[in-house]
Amino acid sequence: MKKIPDEIVACLKENEEYLILLHQKPDGDAIGSAIALGKGLKQLNKSVDYYIETPIEDKLLFFEEIDCFNRQLKESYDVILFLDCSSSGFAYSPQTMPKAKVKLVIDHHKSNAHYGDLNCVEITGATAEIVYRILKALAVEIDEEMADAVFTAITTDTGSFQFSNVTNDTHIIAGELYKVKPSYANLSKRLHNQKNMDQMKMTGAAIHSLEILDSMPIALMVLDYDTIVKYGGTINISDDVANVGQNTIGVAITALLKEVRPGDYRVSLRAKFPFDIHKIALKYGGGGHERAAGFNFRGDIQEIKDDLMEVYQTQCEQDETI
Amino acid sequence: MKKIPDEIVACLKENEEYLILLHQKPDGDAIGSAIALGKGLKQLNKSVDYYIETPIEDKLLFFEEIDCFNRQLKESYDVILFLDCSSSGFAYSPQTMPKAKVKLVIDHHKSNAHYGDLNCVEITGATAEIVYRILKALAVEIDEEMADAVFTAITTDTGSFQFSNVTNDTHIIAGELYKVKPSYANLSKRLHNQKNMDQMKMTGAAIHSLEILDSMPIALMVLDYDTIVKYGGTINISDDVANVGQNTIGVAITALLKEVRPGDYRVSLRAKFPFDIHKIALKYGGGGHERAAGFNFRGDIQEIKDDLMEVYQTQCEQDETI
Ligand SMILES: [Mn+2]
Ligand SMILES: [Mn+2]
Repeated sequence: MKKIPDEIVACLKENEEYLILLHQKPDGDAIGSAIALGKGLKQLNKSVDYYIETPIEDKLLFFEEIDCFNRQLKESYDVILFLDCSSSGFAYSPQTMPKAKVKLVIDHHKSNAHYGDLNCVEITGATAEIVYRILKALAVEIDEEMADAVFTAITTDTGSFQFSNVTNDTHIIAGELYKVKPSYANLSKRLHNQKNMDQMKMTGAAIHSLEILDSMPIALMVLDYDTIVKYGGTINISDDVANVGQNTIGVAITALLKEVRPGDYRVSLRAKFPFDIHKIALKYGGGGHERAAGFNFRGDIQEIKDDLMEVYQTQCEQDETI
Repeated sequence: MKKIPDEIVACLKENEEYLILLHQKPDGDAIGSAIALGKGLKQLNKSVDYYIETPIEDKLLFFEEIDCFNRQLKESYDVILFLDCSSSGFAYSPQTMPKAKVKLVIDHHKSNAHYGDLNCVEITGATAEIVYRILKALAVEIDEEMADAVFTAITTDTGSFQFSNVTNDTHIIAGELYKVKPSYANLSKRLHNQKNMDQMKMTGAAIHSLEILDSMPIALMVLDYDTIVKYGGTINISDDVANVGQNTIGVAITALLKEVRPGDYRVSLRAKFPFDIHKIALKYGGGGHERAAGFNFRGDIQEIKDDLMEVYQTQCEQDETI
């Protein structure tokens, strides 16, 4: 495993009072990194506060350490830790930010702006991989909750060890967690597969709506307003619905249209290869990049279909003339 | 990593001519183990034949070594290798079995009958974990196809590192494969997520049909004859469809009814906890155990629903009186 820079380890050894901040809508990696590092620092008799956006997704609520989140904050800390957060603007932070001797950023996003006084930024599968290596460098003993936290972070941020961000280190760390407890099967099931009945039905409805545009490798899925209301609202649209189209053999671009109010659509675009889909998003005031983009839309959805087909055809023609 | 017994390594070093056999309907672990070990032995200038049931699933067809399967067999071999095969009766083997000095069994099934002259049987995530350790003991160099083979075996047999058969060794081995190539993301996608359009639509139809029986934790899904025909026949019903019900929070038992001919159903039952579902299967001449069972049925499907509810209620009453 790669070594953590000495100055990072020294900072965490020397200081006593910590505040942990995460990005907005914290995910498995953010929550897992916070809990593993927070409990590790407490084991070294440091004081740790957490300021973390709630509510937290149901599937992550099993961590007991969550009871310690969002207690009364101090006016100042030795160190404010920014975990899994690519920019300070993206952090969920108190209206009046406490003073701090050091802002320490621990993150794995390529786009990280190195906005801390100290920055421990590496391209890893999950921020929790860096946290785990820090805990080892601090000679902290990993307890079961910390092991669950690191596993949760890694398995959610790597799509169960399937994404291209997985490395040898990812598996070495995951493997070592099996020395703390013998199985992560129940945790994996909890994090990856389970849906409530409404989420399941909504996913089924999205698949049912799947259509291919004019023999092009473009999939369109529409969740209309009635369907969304029938299954409990947008909160029950699972993260993986946009992937359903992408998992269809032969599909290169997927559009998921969610009719959040009658006639108002939230549109998510996904591409398997770099495509100019962000141009469609920009046209409607949204944003994104060549692989994922999103925007709001009101009108006849045929317009979106035409945009998708045009972007696809234009790019194919360009590719042919190169 | 655990050490491979010396006698196994010695047998593979000393002998020259090998035949590899697998179980019927070979899966990712069987095919992956065969290719990794077969290519490894060839690297040591051994001769290797494969006798393997075809057709092989589409998603596994990318291995070039498959071209070497099922060529003319010799009348005798030094060693016949049985890979991933819990009993010799379950093996797919030539009508006239060639002679062999040694039958060597390499397998990870708990129920393995140790039917070889030599048996290398360990409870691991995949047989390919044992194969990988054998290759290391033989000082074979792992090439990209062998790495893909071992990864394929592990990720399919462990449900992408989610099942309770995963150990520290599983991750150590998977991690080492990243030294051969930097990413297994495309392979993972190929093996786990991709469905053709018909498989996708069929899955959507199954989810759409999901119903809960009378507020009990029992899910019923029906793929009727017209739907199955519409989406290209039973061959397009994905393996994971029966899991869809099981992935619904609150569901303990799932029944998937496939109307393969008008009025004729193939029924699959799944239970999260031990339930007497095999009793239903036995009633109709089928079989199985407390977690998975299956049978054929002709009649009114209300009968199946009643059976499921009765089994559930009876068992709940028994549990309460204990
Ligand atoms: Mn992350
Ligand atoms: Mn196996």
